[in-house]
Amino acid sequence: MTTERILLAHGSGGKLSHDLVEKLFARRFSNAILDRMDDSAVLEIMGRKPGATSNRQRQGNISPHSLELVGKLAFTTDSYVVSPIVFPGGDIGKLAVCGTVNDLCMSGAHPLYLSAGFIIEEGLSLDELEGIVDSMATTALQAGVAIVTGDTKVVDKGHADLLFINTSGVGIVPPEVNVSGSNARPGDVVLVSGTMGDHGMAILIQREGLQFSSHLTSDCAPLNGLVETIFASLSTEESKCLVARVHCLRDPTRGGLITTLNELAQASDVGIEIEETSIPVCDPVRAACELLGFDPLYVANEGKLVAIVTADIAQRVLEAMKAHPYGANAAIIGEVTSSHAGKVIVRTALGARRIAGMLAGEQLPRIC
Amino acid sequence: MTTERILLAHGSGGKLSHDLVEKLFARRFSNAILDRMDDSAVLEIMGRKPGATSNRQRQGNISPHSLELVGKLAFTTDSYVVSPIVFPGGDIGKLAVCGTVNDLCMSGAHPLYLSAGFIIEEGLSLDELEGIVDSMATTALQAGVAIVTGDTKVVDKGHADLLFINTSGVGIVPPEVNVSGSNARPGDVVLVSGTMGDHGMAILIQREGLQFSSHLTSDCAPLNGLVETIFASLSTEESKCLVARVHCLRDPTRGGLITTLNELAQASDVGIEIEETSIPVCDPVRAACELLGFDPLYVANEGKLVAIVTADIAQRVLEAMKAHPYGANAAIIGEVTSSHAGKVIVRTALGARRIAGMLAGEQLPRIC
Repeated sequence: MTTERILLAHGSGGKLSHDLVEKLFARRFSNAILDRMDDSAVLEIMGRKPGATSNRQRQGNISPHSLELVGKLAFTTDSYVVSPIVFPGGDIGKLAVCGTVNDLCMSGAHPLYLSAGFIIEEGLSLDELEGIVDSMATTALQAGVAIVTGDTKVVDKGHADLLFINTSGVGIVPPEVNVSGSNARPGDVVLVSGTMGDHGMAILIQREGLQFSSHLTSDCAPLNGLVETIFASLSTEESKCLVARVHCLRDPTRGGLITTLNELAQASDVGIEIEETSIPVCDPVRAACELLGFDPLYVANEGKLVAIVTADIAQRVLEAMKAHPYGANAAIIGEVTSSHAGKVIVRTALGARRIAGMLAGEQLPRIC
Repeated sequence: MTTERILLAHGSGGKLSHDLVEKLFARRFSNAILDRMDDSAVLEIMGRKPGATSNRQRQGNISPHSLELVGKLAFTTDSYVVSPIVFPGGDIGKLAVCGTVNDLCMSGAHPLYLSAGFIIEEGLSLDELEGIVDSMATTALQAGVAIVTGDTKVVDKGHADLLFINTSGVGIVPPEVNVSGSNARPGDVVLVSGTMGDHGMAILIQREGLQFSSHLTSDCAPLNGLVETIFASLSTEESKCLVARVHCLRDPTRGGLITTLNELAQASDVGIEIEETSIPVCDPVRAACELLGFDPLYVANEGKLVAIVTADIAQRVLEAMKAHPYGANAAIIGEVTSSHAGKVIVRTALGARRIAGMLAGEQLPRIC
C-alpha cells in the first residue's frame, strides 16, 4: 500500500503527467493502438459492406475476424477543465471543439464528428451555459464538424467548478497519410505554425486579474484547414506521395513547445535541435513571460502545430502554412538529429547549447 | 436575460433533463444524426479504400463529397459522476466501461473501442485510482473492447469530487440491424432483461450508510454478449432477416424503466402499455423502495435492457435472453399501442390503468 496522492502537477502535461499515464494507465490498458501514444488512436475499422454476408454471419456469429477492413479511423478524447471558463479569445466551449478537432488533425485525419459530455455544477447560470454552447456550435460550424452525440451530468454545488466539458471525436485518415509521433527521422526539419505561448499567458492574465498595457488573446483555433492546406501543397499533379513525407504533427498544448518536442524525440528515439532565436514569440507574451518569470517555450498553445517533415519539402510546407491565416507566423525552428536520442537541445542566441527537458511539475494549472 | 440556474434535477434523466437537452443543446447542435436522440449516433462513415484515388483527391482537395460509404459506425459518450466512487457490485471505472458499451449495444452495434477521459481531484489516493483503473481494464477485457485513447486532467482540491470519468465509444453496426428509439410500432411486444432498480438502490444505500438485512448489489454489467445472443437467436438458417424485427433496444439508466419507456413512446409516437405485476423486481429492492418511498420503476439500472420487438419473435427473444446469465430474469412486460401516443400506461395489480409520466426532477442524484 502506498499513501501517494494525486497532485496538481499530475495534470500538468509535464514529467509527472507522463509518469502517471505510463505507470498507471498505459500498463493496465495496454494494446497495440494505445501504446503508440499519439494524440488520436488510429483504428482499422472492420465491417461488412451492406449485402455481403457469409454463413458465419448468417448465424449471427459476427466476430471481428469475419469482418473486412473498411477504413482508417482516428478517434480521440479530451476533457476540458480550463479556469476561468471564459477568457480573451475564447471560452471552454470553443476550446473543447478546437482541442479535439486539433487532436484528430494531428493524426492526419479529416475531423468529421464530435461528441460532447457536460459535467455542470449546480448553480451555473443558464445564460452562461447558453453562451458556451453557442460558442461550441459556431466553432463546430467553422471547423466543418458535426456534434452528433452528447451527455449531461449535474453535480451538487461545491463538487465541480462551474463546467467541465469532454469532447471526443472521430475522423477519417486518408490512406496516403502516415503521421505519428514515432515517425521523426534524423535529417528531418522542425517547423512551428506561429507564435508560442499565447493561450497559456492569456488564461493566466485573465485568471489572476492582471493588467497589461497590451492585450493578450488566446490563439484557440481549429487547425484542420491549416493541415489540409499543407497536405494540398504536397499533392500537386507531379506527385501525390509527398504527403507521406510529413512525419509528425502535434499541437503543443499543455507543457508547451518544449514538452511536445520531448515527447516526439522520445517516441521517435531521435534528438531534436532547435534554434531559440528562430522561434516566434509575440511581444506581449514575451513581455508578460519576462515579468512573471515564465518561459514561453513551456507555455500552452491551442491554435498552433509542430510539424516534422523531410528536408526536401520543408520550404514548401513553410510557404503553405504562411499562406493560411492560422500559419502566418510559421517558421522553421530546427532539425532532427541522430545524436542526443530522446533529448531536445536548444541553441541559444549566444551560441550555447543546452538540454531542455520536460518540467516535472505544474507551471500553469488548468489552462485547458 | 434570464437568471435561471442549473439545478441538480437538470441531471436527473427526468423531464427537466429532457427539456435542457432539447432547448439548450439539441437546438444549437442540430443535425440529422443528433436529432434522432438515440443512445449512440449511427454514422455513415465515408472514406477511400487504400489505392483508390481520384483527380480531386490527388490535388489534396478531399471533401466528404468525394468519399464513398465504408461502413455504419456507432459513436457515443457518457460522463460518470457517481458518488460514492466505489459501491457494492462495482465502482465508477466498471460503470464507465459498462455504460458506454451498453449505449453502443443499444444501437445494435458491436462495441470495439473506448476512450477514457479522467478528471481527478487533487488529493485522490493513487491506490484508489489504481483500483478503479484495474476495474476498467478487467471490465473492458470481459466486454471484448479495447481502451485506445485517453486523457487525464487534475483540478485543485475542492473543485471536483474525487474522480469523474468520461468514456466514449465506437462500434460497427451490422447492415441487417436497424434499431432506434423511433422504430416501435403498434402491436410490438415490450420485454425487459431482468429485475428493475438494483443499481440505483445499491448506490443510495451505500451513499447514505443505511443497513439492510439483505445485501443489495448493483447490476452493473456489459450487455453486448446478451445483445449478440438475441441477434444470434434471430439469425438461424431459415431466415436471417428476423434481426430487423428488433425495433428498439435501450438500457433503462437514469430515471429507470418508466422514463425510458416514455422516451421510446415519444420518439416512436406510439403508446406503451405495461402490466405492473409482470415487471421483475427483486425482494431486497422492493423492500428498500417501500421503506424509503421510492418506486423501483423509476430507479436506475446499469445491466438491464428494454427490447421492443415484433410480436412473432417475442417468445424467441425471451428464451434467448433467459439462456444468458444477464437475462435470467427476463420477462415480457407489455405491448405497443396506437392509442395514448407518446404516453406510458401502467395496468396495476388491481386492474386499474394509470398514465406513468417522466418525473420532473431528481429522485436519486449522481447514480451514474
